[in-house]
Amino acid sequence: MKIDFEAAVQFLRESDNFLLLTHRNPDGDAVGSLWALCRALRSIGKRVTFRLAGRVAENMLFAAEQPDDSFEPQCIVSVDLAEAHLLGEELFPVYGDRIDLNIDHHASNTFFAKKTLLNGNAAAAAVLVYQLYAPLGATLDKKAAEQLYIGVSTDTGCFRYHNTDADCLRTAAALVEAGVDNGEINRIIFETKSKAYVQFESLALNSMRMHFDGKCAVISLTQEMYAKTGVDESEIHMISALPRQIEGVLVGVTIKEKENGLCRVSLRTNEPVDASSIAKIFGGGGHKLAAGCDLNGGLRTATADLLKAIEATLKEYNLL
Amino acid sequence: MKIDFEAAVQFLRESDNFLLLTHRNPDGDAVGSLWALCRALRSIGKRVTFRLAGRVAENMLFAAEQPDDSFEPQCIVSVDLAEAHLLGEELFPVYGDRIDLNIDHHASNTFFAKKTLLNGNAAAAAVLVYQLYAPLGATLDKKAAEQLYIGVSTDTGCFRYHNTDADCLRTAAALVEAGVDNGEINRIIFETKSKAYVQFESLALNSMRMHFDGKCAVISLTQEMYAKTGVDESEIHMISALPRQIEGVLVGVTIKEKENGLCRVSLRTNEPVDASSIAKIFGGGGHKLAAGCDLNGGLRTATADLLKAIEATLKEYNLL
Repeated sequence: MKIDFEAAVQFLRESDNFLLLTHRNPDGDAVGSLWALCRALRSIGKRVTFRLAGRVAENMLFAAEQPDDSFEPQCIVSVDLAEAHLLGEELFPVYGDRIDLNIDHHASNTFFAKKTLLNGNAAAAAVLVYQLYAPLGATLDKKAAEQLYIGVSTDTGCFRYHNTDADCLRTAAALVEAGVDNGEINRIIFETKSKAYVQFESLALNSMRMHFDGKCAVISLTQEMYAKTGVDESEIHMISALPRQIEGVLVGVTIKEKENGLCRVSLRTNEPVDASSIAKIFGGGGHKLAAGCDLNGGLRTATADLLKAIEATLKEYNLL
Repeated sequence: MKIDFEAAVQFLRESDNFLLLTHRNPDGDAVGSLWALCRALRSIGKRVTFRLAGRVAENMLFAAEQPDDSFEPQCIVSVDLAEAHLLGEELFPVYGDRIDLNIDHHASNTFFAKKTLLNGNAAAAAVLVYQLYAPLGATLDKKAAEQLYIGVSTDTGCFRYHNTDADCLRTAAALVEAGVDNGEINRIIFETKSKAYVQFESLALNSMRMHFDGKCAVISLTQEMYAKTGVDESEIHMISALPRQIEGVLVGVTIKEKENGLCRVSLRTNEPVDASSIAKIFGGGGHKLAAGCDLNGGLRTATADLLKAIEATLKEYNLL
C-alpha cells in the first residue's frame, strides 16, 4: 500500500523497537538514509537497530551509527530498496516478506512492503528521510545532517547528474546550514583516489580506442592491468564514466576481462543513442544512457561483436 | 564607497545606457554574471552593451548575449572584478578609473569603483546578480537562469569546493526551478573532455612520482607531451588538481616545462600544509591550499630544488 508523508510519520511515531534495512552492497544513499533515519528515531526516544549486507565504503564511516542488540525488533523499516530481493542472499529469506514500511525513491519500486512511502522523482532516498525530520520532531544535529548529505551528494554525483533537482539542492542547502562541512566531505568522497586507482586509470585511458569517426570510445580493462596495479574492485566503477566524457562520443564502452573469456561490458551513451537497446542484443539491460551486458569468447571477440552492434545502431540513427 | 543592495538597485534603476565589464580572460562566473546583468537590465527597458577581454570558453557560448553598439554608454558597471587592473591591458587604461558600480564577491576587493556592492562570502558574483533580479523587477527567464547557473556552478566546481554555501545551493535550486537543464549544462561544462586532453592526462598520470612516504605527488608535463598530444593550453589547468587527489597526499605538485629551462609550478596542498609558504621560497605566491611559482634550470633541477623545499616544510610540520 502506498502511503503519504503524514501516514508514514504517524506510523513511525506509533511504533517502536525498529529494525532498519537497506539494499545489499549499500552505497552512500543507502547507508546515509539508514543512519539518518536511525538517528531521527533515536532522537525522539525510540529504540533502533539495523543490519547492513556488505561493506560500507571506508570514507563514509565517519558518519556511522552503531547497531543496538539490546532489544527484540518489532517493526521493520527499509530505505532505498526498490525490490525485496535486493536485500541480498542473507537478509532476503529472513525479512523479504516482513517489511512494515519501505521509504524509497525508485520509480521502479515493486511495492513489496506492507506500506510504501515513495517519491519516484526524488534524487535520493535521503531527501525523503530529511523531509521526515521536521514532522517527526526529530533533532537535525550536525551528524544527522552529514548522514543525509552523504546520501544526497553521492546519488547525484555531487549535484552533477541529471537527477539533481531543486528539491535536492534545497535539501543540501538546509544540511549545510545545519553544520555539514560539505567542502571537506566532498574532498573525502569525490576528490580522493588511491594511488593504485590512479595508475589503473592511466593504463585504462591508454587502452582507449576510438571508432566510427570518434562517435564510439572503447576502454579495455585486462586481468594484467588489475594484477599490475593491485587496484581495488570497488574503485573500478569510476572508469566506466570516462569514455563517454570525450567530446563527440555518443557511445562509451568499458570492457572488463573476467575469467574464462567472460567479458563484462558497461555502456554509457549520450543522446539520442539508447544504451539499453545495445545491451539487450547481448541479453543485458539497463537505462537509456547507462546499460550493461556480458559477452563470451575473450576480449578480442567480444570487442569485435560489440562494435558490430554499435555500428548497426549508429546507422539506424543515421549517425554513420 | 561600499553600498548595500537597496542602493545598488536604486542606482541601476535610475541609470541607463550601460556598459558592462568584467575581468580579462573571463571565466564562467565573469561571463555568466555579466550576461545575466545585461539581460536583467534589458528586461526592464534599459539599453546595455558590454566588452569582454579575451576568449570565452566555447562550451558557454550557448548562453551568450550580444553587445549593442547603437548608443553611447553613460554608466559603467563591472562584475566579478577584484582589482581595476584585472580589466586587462586593453580595457584598464580606458575604463580603470571610470567604473560607476562594481558588483563583486572577492574578499580582497580594492574598492576602486565609485560604488561597490560586495559580498566577500558569496560563492560567486552570479549569486549577487541573482539577488538583484527580484528587487530590480527583472524577468528571470530560462536563458537568464542558464547564465546565472554557469556562474554559480563553475565558481564552485559544480558545488564541490569549500566555498559552496547554503546561499549558492539555494540560488541553484531557484535557477533549476526557472527552467535550467542543469544536468545537461553540467555534462557539457564538467563532463566533456577533448580526445587530446584524455591522452595528455594519461601521460600526465603516468609521469606521476610519489615522494616522502606518499605525502607528496609530482606530475611532470614535458614539451614532448604537449607536442605528442596536441592538447590545448586551456584544458591543461585541470591536471593540477590530480596529484592532491591521491589518498594520503599532502602536497600535490604539477611542473610544466616551458621554454629555455623555465618551469612553471602549481602547488595544491591539503590541511595543514600551506602551499603559499612553499611558493614564496621561490618568489611565487597564492592561497593556503593552492599556490604557484616559477623555477629555472630545467625540469630535473627544478624538481630537485622543489622537493628539498617540500621536505623541509613537511619536517617543519612534524609530518616527516
